[in-house]
Amino acid sequence: MKSYRKELFFHLPTRRGIVNITRQVEAALKESGVKEGLVLVNAMNITASVFINDEESGLHQDFEDWLEKLAPEKPYSRYRHNGYEDNADAHLKRTVMGREVVVAVTEGKLDFGTWEQIFYFEFDGKRDKHALVKIIGE
Amino acid sequence: MKSYRKELFFHLPTRRGIVNITRQVEAALKESGVKEGLVLVNAMNITASVFINDEESGLHQDFEDWLEKLAPEKPYSRYRHNGYEDNADAHLKRTVMGREVVVAVTEGKLDFGTWEQIFYFEFDGKRDKHALVKIIGE
Amino acid sequence: MKSYRKELFFHLPTRRGIVNITRQVEAALKESGVKEGLVLVNAMNITASVFINDEESGLHQDFEDWLEKLAPEKPYSRYRHNGYEDNADAHLKRTVMGREVVVAVTEGKLDFGTWEQIFYFEFDGKRDKHALVKIIGE
Repeated sequence: MKSYRKELFFHLPTRRGIVNITRQVEAALKESGVKEGLVLVNAMNITASVFINDEESGLHQDFEDWLEKLAPEKPYSRYRHNGYEDNADAHLKRTVMGREVVVAVTEGKLDFGTWEQIFYFEFDGKRDKHALVKIIGE
Repeated sequence: MKSYRKELFFHLPTRRGIVNITRQVEAALKESGVKEGLVLVNAMNITASVFINDEESGLHQDFEDWLEKLAPEKPYSRYRHNGYEDNADAHLKRTVMGREVVVAVTEGKLDFGTWEQIFYFEFDGKRDKHALVKIIGE
Repeated sequence: MKSYRKELFFHLPTRRGIVNITRQVEAALKESGVKEGLVLVNAMNITASVFINDEESGLHQDFEDWLEKLAPEKPYSRYRHNGYEDNADAHLKRTVMGREVVVAVTEGKLDFGTWEQIFYFEFDGKRDKHALVKIIGE
């Protein structure tokens, strides 16, 4: 069994934002030499998500608007976690979108449907964050 | 390490619906010959989910009603993704229910609690869709 | 390839509650002898979650309040699943928080960011429940 590990780094200029990381995960897969197996991609911070959906800017805005309704950022005082911090909403939003994805590797490629793309979703940006790519297989 | 891949196909007559795929995943596991490992089951379309819960029709109706409150289908104009498409709500509903499940394989069987069953949840039906079963182990 | 399986047992005195299981998963990992691979941790009951987030009591109370807004426990009659049972809300809350986590194993340790901790979230307690730890790798 082979295994391969790579970290991806982020520092977004805004509190929230979506970054397509499909190419970076594909590059890690190529470096790993794994032909059949599984790829795990997870946020290493608890105020960010990794998720799979469509590369379409209208949809990304819909996600932003929808999450803001489900778990509003403000007023900060609505959450007990806030005080020293102001990011309770980020923990909740990341929960809706998910921490991680697991993707099949078949014949050396991400085994994806036509429109599947992997994204990093930042909910508490303007600081250094990272995600993990772990690949196992052979 | 062994690996095995199988696609499951769907074409629901309705926009939304739930299909129990436990038997199909068990069949794939048997075909794989894997005795110890992991099974990944994921929707290959971004408007559908694979999830694990109970086979109980009242609960399935509760899921339908609840998701329709969290991310209403209509009016279509409430979402920026809609225009050529009308399925923005399907992307959001699938996010709540999840893209994938990972299940342990122990002694050649899905290592499940008493009530765990695997379901495909369609949110934008009346067309050809597919899901992936990927099994690794030995 | 090595594989290792362990069940964790719970019996909470309350309907809902959060239990930090990071140390128990680390213990299972040590017992497994796996140095590189993946750990799956999943609830085996369909009214409980396993999730990764922060060990902070204010945030845990925020999760409780937020889930109760998204999927209220009462009135029980609002859900079709209820009748013999009263736990439909538990099925929905567990869906938001997720059934499972998959964690990378690197150099014999859970490959975690600084604040990542694994929790069991009970939504229908006062009875025997269990979760599964399955580890594969080498």
